[in-house]
Parts: sequence; C-alpha cells; structure tokens
Amino acid sequence: MSTLIHRHSDGVFIIAATPFAGDGALDLDSTDRMVDFYLDCGVTGMTILGIMGEAPKLSGEESQVFARRVLDRVAGRVPVIVGVSGAGLDNMARLSHSVMDMGAAGVMVAPMPGLLTETKLKGYFAQVCGALGPDVPICLQDYPQTTGVQFSVETILDIARANPQVVMLKHEDWPGLNKLSRVRAETGTGDMPRLSILVGNAALFLPQELQRGADGAMTGFAYPEMLVQVVERHKAGDVDGAEDLFDAYLPMVRYEQQLGIGLAIRKEILHRRGVLAAPKVRAPGPSLTKADHAELTRLMSRLDKKLGEMG
Amino acid sequence: MSTLIHRHSDGVFIIAATPFAGDGALDLDSTDRMVDFYLDCGVTGMTILGIMGEAPKLSGEESQVFARRVLDRVAGRVPVIVGVSGAGLDNMARLSHSVMDMGAAGVMVAPMPGLLTETKLKGYFAQVCGALGPDVPICLQDYPQTTGVQFSVETILDIARANPQVVMLKHEDWPGLNKLSRVRAETGTGDMPRLSILVGNAALFLPQELQRGADGAMTGFAYPEMLVQVVERHKAGDVDGAEDLFDAYLPMVRYEQQLGIGLAIRKEILHRRGVLAAPKVRAPGPSLTKADHAELTRLMSRLDKKLGEMG
Amino acid sequence: MSTLIHRHSDGVFIIAATPFAGDGALDLDSTDRMVDFYLDCGVTGMTILGIMGEAPKLSGEESQVFARRVLDRVAGRVPVIVGVSGAGLDNMARLSHSVMDMGAAGVMVAPMPGLLTETKLKGYFAQVCGALGPDVPICLQDYPQTTGVQFSVETILDIARANPQVVMLKHEDWPGLNKLSRVRAETGTGDMPRLSILVGNAALFLPQELQRGADGAMTGFAYPEMLVQVVERHKAGDVDGAEDLFDAYLPMVRYEQQLGIGLAIRKEILHRRGVLAAPKVRAPGPSLTKADHAELTRLMSRLDKKLGEMG
Amino acid sequence: MSTLIHRHSDGVFIIAATPFAGDGALDLDSTDRMVDFYLDCGVTGMTILGIMGEAPKLSGEESQVFARRVLDRVAGRVPVIVGVSGAGLDNMARLSHSVMDMGAAGVMVAPMPGLLTETKLKGYFAQVCGALGPDVPICLQDYPQTTGVQFSVETILDIARANPQVVMLKHEDWPGLNKLSRVRAETGTGDMPRLSILVGNAALFLPQELQRGADGAMTGFAYPEMLVQVVERHKAGDVDGAEDLFDAYLPMVRYEQQLGIGLAIRKEILHRRGVLAAPKVRAPGPSLTKADHAELTRLMSRLDKKLGEMG
Repeated sequence: MSTLIHRHSDGVFIIAATPFAGDGALDLDSTDRMVDFYLDCGVTGMTILGIMGEAPKLSGEESQVFARRVLDRVAGRVPVIVGVSGAGLDNMARLSHSVMDMGAAGVMVAPMPGLLTETKLKGYFAQVCGALGPDVPICLQDYPQTTGVQFSVETILDIARANPQVVMLKHEDWPGLNKLSRVRAETGTGDMPRLSILVGNAALFLPQELQRGADGAMTGFAYPEMLVQVVERHKAGDVDGAEDLFDAYLPMVRYEQQLGIGLAIRKEILHRRGVLAAPKVRAPGPSLTKADHAELTRLMSRLDKKLGEMG
Repeated sequence: MSTLIHRHSDGVFIIAATPFAGDGALDLDSTDRMVDFYLDCGVTGMTILGIMGEAPKLSGEESQVFARRVLDRVAGRVPVIVGVSGAGLDNMARLSHSVMDMGAAGVMVAPMPGLLTETKLKGYFAQVCGALGPDVPICLQDYPQTTGVQFSVETILDIARANPQVVMLKHEDWPGLNKLSRVRAETGTGDMPRLSILVGNAALFLPQELQRGADGAMTGFAYPEMLVQVVERHKAGDVDGAEDLFDAYLPMVRYEQQLGIGLAIRKEILHRRGVLAAPKVRAPGPSLTKADHAELTRLMSRLDKKLGEMG
Repeated sequence: MSTLIHRHSDGVFIIAATPFAGDGALDLDSTDRMVDFYLDCGVTGMTILGIMGEAPKLSGEESQVFARRVLDRVAGRVPVIVGVSGAGLDNMARLSHSVMDMGAAGVMVAPMPGLLTETKLKGYFAQVCGALGPDVPICLQDYPQTTGVQFSVETILDIARANPQVVMLKHEDWPGLNKLSRVRAETGTGDMPRLSILVGNAALFLPQELQRGADGAMTGFAYPEMLVQVVERHKAGDVDGAEDLFDAYLPMVRYEQQLGIGLAIRKEILHRRGVLAAPKVRAPGPSLTKADHAELTRLMSRLDKKLGEMG
Repeated sequence: MSTLIHRHSDGVFIIAATPFAGDGALDLDSTDRMVDFYLDCGVTGMTILGIMGEAPKLSGEESQVFARRVLDRVAGRVPVIVGVSGAGLDNMARLSHSVMDMGAAGVMVAPMPGLLTETKLKGYFAQVCGALGPDVPICLQDYPQTTGVQFSVETILDIARANPQVVMLKHEDWPGLNKLSRVRAETGTGDMPRLSILVGNAALFLPQELQRGADGAMTGFAYPEMLVQVVERHKAGDVDGAEDLFDAYLPMVRYEQQLGIGLAIRKEILHRRGVLAAPKVRAPGPSLTKADHAELTRLMSRLDKKLGEMG
C-alpha cells in the first residue's frame, strides 16, 4: 500500500479521466493503459473520481469497480486520491471508507454549493471530518468557478487548523496567485501546520504558482510529461527552463482550460495519443465539432513543431 | 397498478418526506404511517425522492428500498411520481426504468444547473426523453430558486410540444403567476396539447394559482388536508371558501416556505402530528433552534384556535 | 433638522417609492402627497433612493432634486435615510455628503455584488466608512436575494464593532429568523454596542421578528398604517393583537412580496389609494397584466371585508 | 466626424482605460497621451467607458468630460464606441444621445443582470433600441462571465434580425469558439444580415477566433501593437505568422486575463510604458502586491527577450 497523502506531498498528481467505450460502458482496458501511461510520464500521484472524472455520472457500483481497478493497477507505486464530494455525509463517509480500505491515500472534498459564509464553510468541514473520522487524510478543493463557493485565506487556515486531517489544498481559485502566496507564507509557521499545495485550474499559471511556493500540480492536462518536467526543472533550480518549457505548451494548456468542453478536448487528445480506446464523454456532456477537431489537429501539430525546435 | 400521470392529472400530489430514525437510518415504519396519513388526507397522488425528499443523501440502494416500500403501501390507490433528476443520463434512465417497473406513474425531472439558454434546455430534455424512452411520462419541474435554471413560457411549450411524454408541469417559479396564466392559456389549444399544471413553491399562492387555472398542487405542506380541501372547494365552485380556508393556514404556509429550514419545520410538524417517529433531517441539513421550536408551537396553537373559530 | 439615526432607532421607517408621471418624469406633487401620507400613517422614519426607489434609474440631478423635495417636505419631523449604494466610493461619498448637508439622518449601504468572503466584506465596509467619514451614520443592508452577498452573524458583528458609525441593520436575509435572534442577543453586550434592527423583506415575518427582538420595520408595504399599528401594539405588550392584525393583512403582504413585480403592485396600490398620480415604473421594469389588476382588486376587497369584520 | 460603426467594421477596437491621477482625479493629460499611443499602435477604433473603463465609478459629469476629451483628441481619425450599459433606459438614452452628438460612432450595450431567458433578452433589446432610436448603431456585448446573462446563437440572431441597428457583436463568451463559428456562418446570409464580430475576453483565443471568422478584436491588452499586427498578418494571409506572434505574447495575454486584478495589471503596464502618469484604479478596486510587481517585471522581461529572439 502507498503512503497516505501528507503535508509535504508534491510533484504531479494527475487528475485521471474515467475511460468509457463508444457505447458508454466503463472501459477497464483503457483504464489500465491510462494508469500505465500516467506512471510512465512520471506522475507522483493520481486523483480519480473528481469533477473531471465524471464521477456523478457513474452508478455507485461503477465507482467502486473503477476505483478498485485503478488502485489494483497502481499497486501502491504512487498515492491515489479519490474525490468523494457529494450532497450527503452518509454517502461521503461510505465511499471514503470503502476506497481507503482498497488502498486509497486520501480523499478530496469540495464544498457543496450554497456554503456562502465562512461560518457555514467551517461548520461543513467540521461535519465532514467528523463523518469521515480522523484517519482519512483530506485534500480540500478550492474551486469557486464550479462550486460557486469562495474561500478566503483566513477560512482555509481556520479549517486546516481546526481539522488536522486536512493536509492538502487543491488550489484553483482564479484569479488566485496572491491567495496562493498567502497560504504558503502563513502555513508551516509556529501555530499553523504546513499544507501541501497542488495547483489545478488546468495549470494555466503553473510557473508563477511554483515560483510562489506551490508544491506541484493536480490537474488533468493531456500531456502529463510537461507537468512532470516543469515541476522537476523548477525544483532543480532551473526556474527559467521550467517556464520556457511550460510556455511552449501554453497554447495547448489554454486550449484545454475551457470549462466544460475542456473535458472532451482532453479525452480526444488522450485518444489520439493511444491512451483511450474512445474519446467518449458520458451524456449529458460536451462533444467536439468538426472545426474543433481541425483546430486541435493544428494546435497539436504546432506543439510538435515547437518541441522539435526546442530540441 | 395505478394509471400513469397524464395531461389531466389534478388534485394534490403530496411531496413525501423521507423518514429517518434518530440515528439517520431509513425509517420504514414511519414510511408506512406517512403513506397512510397522506391517503387519509385525501391526496390524489404522491411524489417521492424529490429535492425535499433528500434524494441526493440516499444511497442508490436506499432509494430503491424506499421507493419500493412506498409503492407497495400505496398499492395503486393513487399515482406515485418519482424524482429522478441527476447529473448523468445513464443513472437517470436506470432509476426511471427501475421505479416504473415497480409501479410508479411517472418521473419528475428538474434541469441540471448550468442549462442557461433555451437552446441548451431544449437539447437537454430531448436527451432525457431519448434516454428514458417514450413510455415514461414526465413531470417537468420549473424551480429556478433551487436549480438556477430559468424557463420562459416559450421554452416550456417548445419542450412539451417536442416531447409528448412531458405531460405535467410542476410550476414553482417565483414570481410566476403570469407565467402560469400563459401556460394555461397556451396549452390545450389546436396545435399544443394540454399540460397538467400542479403548483409547488410551498403553495404560497395556491388560491391565486387555482383561479388562474392550475389543476392542483404538488408540494409537501405538513397539513395536506388543507391543500386537499382548498382544491376541492375551488373545483366545487366555492372560490371564496377555498381562499378563506387557505388564508387561515397562510401564516403556517409562509412559515414552512423558508428555503432550507422549511424541511426541518415540515418534518417537525409531521413528527408532532404523530406521523414521523423522529423529525430527523440527514446531515448536512438544517435543524431547529429552541426559539424555532417555541415559535412553531405558537403558530400551531394559533392555527388550532383559528380553525376552531371557523367551525 | 431631525436627529441622526442611532442605535435605538425604532418604529417604521417606510421605504419610499419614487413617484413618476405617466410620461416617466419625476412627479414632485405626488412626492409631497406621498410624504404627507406616510407621516399621517405614523411612520417614525423614511428611507429614500433604495433599491425599491428605482435609484439607479434616476440621473444624478434627479436624485438630488428628489432627495431635496422629500427632505424639505418632511422638515425634520422624522429622520430620513438615503440609499447610497453604488459601484464607486467617490460617487457614494459625494452623494452621502450632499444629502447629509440637506438634512438626511443617515445613509443605507448594501454591499456591491461580488464581495463573497468575510474578508472582502470587512475590507469593503472599512473603505466605505473611510470614504464617508465618521460623521455619517450608516444602516447596513443585508439583502442577499438581490445583492448575492451573504453576511454571517459574525461578519455583521465584526463590521459593526470595527466601524462605530454602523448603527443600524436592515435585516432582510431569508430565511433569517435565527440570524436576527443572534444579532439581537450578541449586540448591546459588554464589548459589542447595540444595533438598531429594522426588518425588510416586505415584512413577511414581522410578528416573528418583533418577538425575536427587532426594533421595527423598514419596508415599503403600501398599507403603512398596518406596519405602524403592529409595531405599536407589540411594543405596548399586545403581542397577540399585533399578530392578529398582521395576519389579516398577510395575504396582501405575501402578494406584494414578489421580487420584481412587487414594485409595480405597490405603486398600483398607492395609486388606487390616491397617493400617487400614476403607478408608473420606469423602464426597464415590471408592469401588471389584466389578470394582475383583477387579482389585486379581489385581494384589496377581501382585505377591506376582513378589516370590517375585525371592527 | 468618423463614420459610424457598421456590419463590416474590423481591425482592433482598443478598450481604453480611464486614466486617473494618484489622488483619483480624472487625468486628462494622460488621456491625450493614451489616445495618441493607441493611434500610433494602429488601432482602427476605440471603445471607452466600458466595464474595464471603470464607467460606473465616474460621476455623470466626469463621463461627459472624459468622452469629450477622447473624441476631441481622436478627431474623427477612427470610430469611437461608448459603453452605455446601465440600469435605466432613460439614463442610457441620455448618455447615448449626448455622446453621439459629440461624434461617437456607436454605443455598446451589455444586458442587465437578471435577463435569464431568451424572451426577456429579446424584450430588453427591443426596449433599448426603442429608447435609443434607430440612428444609434449598437454593439451587443456578450460577456456572461461578468453579466451572468447567457446568449444562445439563436438569441443573438433574433435580436440582430429584429433590430437592424445592432450591427456588431462583442464576442466574449467563454468557452465560445463554436458560438463564434455559428454566428459567422449564420449571418451575412439571405435573410440574416452580416454582423461585425470583434472578440474580447482579453483576446485569449485571438488566432483561433480569426481563423473562425472574427473581424478583429475589441479588448484592452496593454500591448495593442500585438493585436494590430496579429489581425493584419492574418488578413494578409499569414495565418501561421499571426499565430506565432500571438503565441509569443500569450504568457502576458494569459496574465492580463485575470478577471478583476487584470485591470490593475493593465494600468501598471501602461504606466511602465509611459502612457499613464499613474497606474491608479479607483476604489473599490484591485491593487498589485509586491509579488505581483516582481512577477510582472519578470514576465515583461521574458517578453522582451522573446521578441528580441524573433527579430
């Protein structure tokens, strides 16, 4: 079994897609291939059943089957986080305990919509932590673009201080660079324990976020090797080289970071790269037009050319 | 088996609570008692697993168990509608077919959040109807306060025209009296089939809505006998008498129509009336303060007094 | 000149309409008549240029003319609060100083949309208070249904503690009864000064709110005499009598409390009661259908009948 | 006087900042310098008093003074569009007529918040066009991230067909590439007149948008020379060269496209480039931290280096 996620977890936790066959059924062969692909890219962790993993479109049984398949294939080589956000604490606790038993390294929790004051947010995370029990490490997902819920720095710190099992922050507020700077500066101090900070939001600001103290990325970009190399270069002190590599991919990063349709683009790229047998997104969901396909072809080809020039 | 819901369904389809024991487990004895209570009140239908039924807090298996229990107890005496709204069409289809097989009379569908144009809404309902198949009658729930999705009259009519299985509208837009008038006037005409219109939004405007042509109510007010009598009096031509009775209950209707906490109030009243063994709402959910309890006691006592005076 | 608003202000601060002629021009004769009408009803204060006063539809010059007309007519008999909420602090300061010079008793400030964390809200009110200067008393308007901004009790208390010129709360969160109870209990204590609490939200819960410690109402109900009598009876210790009177008007209170169209209903009633020469709402704005007119006639007539029966 | 905006307007309409001195006063000298700078960059038009121009923070008089100063300095060399969005039609009409009299080429209108159905949107634009009169050309701004209002393609086409003075679309929905493709394909046909399409959203997808048929850009990027050259290269047939140049600036485009703080970044760059005497944003508004300043310096220096390498 892998170690649990902790306050110093770093690197790239890839947000895994959930592969479906053309008819919409779970595609477990592609799941195996995808896990291998991510590991080959050098990821240091994986996150499954997140918003991008189409979790709410799976049946309860499918979620179990998929989680088990991924965990079996990973076989403890890297930690795996499971998204468990949902409307009821009972369901969250049931899923959390089930995947922890299978070998998950922690769970990710985004707040329910409607938690619109600090008081409500703190109360909610106290309830969640109580329901999950102190042995389940939690990654708090701060993603207002999708949840409609806003965390201030103060709220994040209060929640982390009050609930020691909250050890990681998935930072994807936007704009959010100064928020990241403050969370970094105000954790790991005397009375406030450190938080691992992994950045999402399609990694649109990854170099800036690393320069401001992020520990790595947690996103699903379809070229995970870039994320891995950027983080590694940065950690090795090659800050400019990290940013140069990132900038080469930036046209594609920007293209994937289109809320909604981004998932279809991501699956299409993984399909073209031989990872997924089909680019299928379950209904209701976005699909690509002919113009999108042509545009993606152009962008992929421009990326290849640029990488060639960079040597 | 009861008949399916149809374009002339009317009366009171009570929105059923989901009873839980004090420890949070499904309470099937209270479920039986609640079904009997509703039937004794004279309801003409029942709706289960709606937003007020805490459906998203049930596991898939619990939903099945609860639906079967209700359907068995009702035993075809009145039609039962099942709420199936959710994020994925596969899950919606699976649940719909399962409950229709058990004897449900139709399903209720509210749009997913994010369907913010008419084009998207029409596309979504086409997809839903395709996934459910033409044999499942649908009640379209128009409830923008909770879904964030707005239907114009034109959109409702277009969806109903394009999808003949959409036979009923749960009207709970607010303010929405003129919308109701228009849907009534513009359905049941030459090229546009009739829609059954049942009103929700806690019935806050029930007399006005009946006067504007609603066929009845679909809400969960904890005194269903009032809803039943108001609709019956209105249909019998006693428009003033219907409104007089309603107005006597209006302080309580208003009190229950508090989004969020209204569910806790409703369950507390059903508990006090001997229907539910416990007023339990699953977490995360609202609970009543001491001041709320005292206030409710006062309001219930004022209601009793007023009903006594009315004879 | 009237005294400034303060921590013990109470009674009924009526939210004044802004009267327009049929062609949309400011109607200053109706303005005089309306002021007289409100004073005759026994209001203890007036609030102008609020959201219901169509303030954003006036030009800067019209706002000045209207405010001066009201203040001149009131002539210091009751305090007048002026709504100054807006996008820029410079504009807010300019308007505030101008109306205070004319004799206003204070200003009302609702937060800008987008202030979605406690940290942002506290920062905003600090900026506003700085821009207005300490001599301008402020009524904080807590109205999330319209602003989209949510205050917790803690945030309200922090703002009031940090900014001594915030002396009054316009409470219209919904549902919000427990919030009101808490603000009442947690102000006027050792380290936290008292706040005057006046309730809005069309007064839908006025008896409950008075029972929980509100000092009065600040809303624009078109029968201000009811608000005045309910508050007076309640203060005189006739709690049941106050609630009985309120309940008689409740069908109409509920009818006016329809966000958006409520303004057109209110102006129509004031027109029918001889206060406004025209029920004009400036474009873009709601207007009443034929069905609305008939419904209102019915409700007004039912109200007259009920008041007759009550003696 | 310049010609009015029309269905074939193209190139770069720069969104002009509103320059303030350090003390917050309108800075008219910087205004002149900014106009000269934009014209030197080769813009084909200018848009003032938009959301990014801090229009709601100006007094009515300041808006007039600023508009007149810009229009006088431009002296008819390029068309100037004035943002007139607001809450009341009277105010919109007054401002529109005033600036058209000064020589503006048209006005820009974004819908009010709350217009959440196609029916309401179409009704609103009919009212606006009626109030402005048929001689005022309109650019419709489709910017849901800020307004909360969503246009479908069908709604845009219906509004443009019904209101011939709507000749231009400011496209900044996100994601919105397929929307742009459809508006381009479905206008300029038999029964549907052409629309000029200028793209906003900080130009994040400018090459893709030009490739899909946009006529140019309307945004406020602080390096307008890039926008101008990209559009020119694209029109000259050098599609790859246009995209190469754009991609070199993309790290900075992405950095400026941070909703809210983007305005402060933009003004800071214009200040560093010698255009604005001060980078002042009026309160309440964003400001840059020390980390932001350092980050911007780094990004500007990387941009210079890359442009140097490109020759």
